[in-house]
Amino acid sequence: MYGISMGTRIRRSPYHAATVAAGVTSFTTYNHMLMPTSYGDPQAEYRRLIDGVAMWDVAVERQIALKGPDAQRLAQALCCRELSKLKPGQGRYVALCDHRGVLINDPVLLLHEDGTIWLFIADSDVLLWARAVAAERRLDVEVEEEDIAPLAVQGPKAEDVIADLFGEDIRAIRHFGFREERLGDIPLVLARSGWSKQGGFELYLRDSRRATELWNRVAEAGAPYDIGPGAPNPSERIESGLLSVGADTDDATTPFEVRMERFVDLEIDADVIGLPALQAEAARGPKRHQLGVVFPKAAPDSHAERLTLTSGNRRVGEITATAPSPRMGKTIGLALVSREVEPGAALDTILPDGRSAPVELRELPFL
Amino acid sequence: MYGISMGTRIRRSPYHAATVAAGVTSFTTYNHMLMPTSYGDPQAEYRRLIDGVAMWDVAVERQIALKGPDAQRLAQALCCRELSKLKPGQGRYVALCDHRGVLINDPVLLLHEDGTIWLFIADSDVLLWARAVAAERRLDVEVEEEDIAPLAVQGPKAEDVIADLFGEDIRAIRHFGFREERLGDIPLVLARSGWSKQGGFELYLRDSRRATELWNRVAEAGAPYDIGPGAPNPSERIESGLLSVGADTDDATTPFEVRMERFVDLEIDADVIGLPALQAEAARGPKRHQLGVVFPKAAPDSHAERLTLTSGNRRVGEITATAPSPRMGKTIGLALVSREVEPGAALDTILPDGRSAPVELRELPFL
Repeated sequence: MYGISMGTRIRRSPYHAATVAAGVTSFTTYNHMLMPTSYGDPQAEYRRLIDGVAMWDVAVERQIALKGPDAQRLAQALCCRELSKLKPGQGRYVALCDHRGVLINDPVLLLHEDGTIWLFIADSDVLLWARAVAAERRLDVEVEEEDIAPLAVQGPKAEDVIADLFGEDIRAIRHFGFREERLGDIPLVLARSGWSKQGGFELYLRDSRRATELWNRVAEAGAPYDIGPGAPNPSERIESGLLSVGADTDDATTPFEVRMERFVDLEIDADVIGLPALQAEAARGPKRHQLGVVFPKAAPDSHAERLTLTSGNRRVGEITATAPSPRMGKTIGLALVSREVEPGAALDTILPDGRSAPVELRELPFL
Repeated sequence: MYGISMGTRIRRSPYHAATVAAGVTSFTTYNHMLMPTSYGDPQAEYRRLIDGVAMWDVAVERQIALKGPDAQRLAQALCCRELSKLKPGQGRYVALCDHRGVLINDPVLLLHEDGTIWLFIADSDVLLWARAVAAERRLDVEVEEEDIAPLAVQGPKAEDVIADLFGEDIRAIRHFGFREERLGDIPLVLARSGWSKQGGFELYLRDSRRATELWNRVAEAGAPYDIGPGAPNPSERIESGLLSVGADTDDATTPFEVRMERFVDLEIDADVIGLPALQAEAARGPKRHQLGVVFPKAAPDSHAERLTLTSGNRRVGEITATAPSPRMGKTIGLALVSREVEPGAALDTILPDGRSAPVELRELPFL
């Protein structure tokens, strides 16, 4: 494995010291910040997520706040999902598209009592995008990145850990629902959320100086459940068909191509960026769709490059990510392919080492 | 050193295979792409840049093209530097500001014969920013990232290497000047440019499939000059006072605060983003300025965190980057400090390990 150089251009997470103490071994970068990716034992990290409970430093889910009289107007301009019926304390998974209807980010959006909106963003500079739109439209809104550091607690035992920390009534919080909490005097927002399908919560720490303390409190509460450190898991997310914008998408990918159609509302009474393009695409049908791939035999040596998919000698798409699936006992992946090919199709791909390998297309999610 | 995880979200450079063959040992990320940062011998890499010639994979300088009837109108809206007198074949170092006059990127801008404009960007999503402005203003312009892979040849012997490859008349190319070239049948643009003050050129490869071939041609031509691989050098760039947007700047930094006043024109006859804010700031004077710091004694153990600067018990600014200076024999750094403190001032800082250390403020550049 190659080393990662550190410097001030790529920020450390407020949980950095805690993750170092927990034995972090590798990082990636996301939103100009370091994110732990492993603590040296990928099998154990996967198992904790599937069978137990894991805690993840996901402070890289940077938090963009829209504040002021036009906050909801800006949010609706940015999101191609109807927001008018959203109530304070609720959240939504939303698609942000550009004027061509191309997906540029897929944040979770939360609405606060005072009308402030939070976007927890994937890896692109939504701060620049939202500020450009707000200023060019002369909206009366502030767009700021706030001092909020998400810590995820994920896995089937996550709810028990969170209930031990915050009380039994947290079990009533619905998916993407949230509320203000304190852990002792540590201020945070507690949300049922997280980038896995194993269930769990995210703690949005409101004061980054308390990060190590919060990490340790969660580790302590989780000890009876064998909690351990982890990170968003490539195997689980592909098994579950979770989207990674930037990995699974390119500069032409629309929400319809990556199974986000139920998060797109085509009849919104507002000037929504990309909506006319999405209406046109809905009418004519998308060019591609996202499917799963299974490698029945040879698996790729590397996940770092997209792999071309062919049918006969015809290029029909790309594999955008691969990972071993411990539960399926095979290497699996996500693919963006022409609508002409359907689940069940047998295709070929070229591995990074030049060998050809057969793959089968599947419906998503795998599990 | 921690490992770096690889995946499809962070792209590999077209020169990746060549840099692996050359012995790359560590990377950073920049514009959602891997950039080599070392080949395992920092001293040799620095020396080649200062005394000889080095070749750098800087494909992460992503290239945003503005094309169409309104390309120059969009460029002028984005840049607070007068562009009307720019001629084809010329380039400019420019500041991109947001509507508050805050610096968001500092690209090199090139104007082509056909009116197309190229921006070689620092590490932020200018593609999103430029597209938002273009679409909201309904400009007739395409904004695309093109398949251009910059390779830098830097150091006092760089011009000799480039002259051996392309002919003696390249010596006449002025700073930021450029021209279309071919190396055999490899299409590229040759520019006198590069992120060092040691002189040199950048080769903007127009076909990424030829990347290994171009790398090898340059390595071969450079062999008589002892060329070797390297990367943008933290020591040299701080000695030379080169700006790293995102490292040396924050969400309030203006061009005036980081010595870019000569790249700002306050009287541009166009709707330039941020110009009114910059005019107001020029009238009242910036709050901070960028200066050098020298550590006469203890040096920081780490470059990964900003360090607070104090005068007595008063916080007067931050050190934004540090590195050892082999030529000065001391650790040096860049700081963003209140205008109240001047070069020559003796300040204190808190090192990452908690120790206090004295520092002296200096004018930039150091060398």
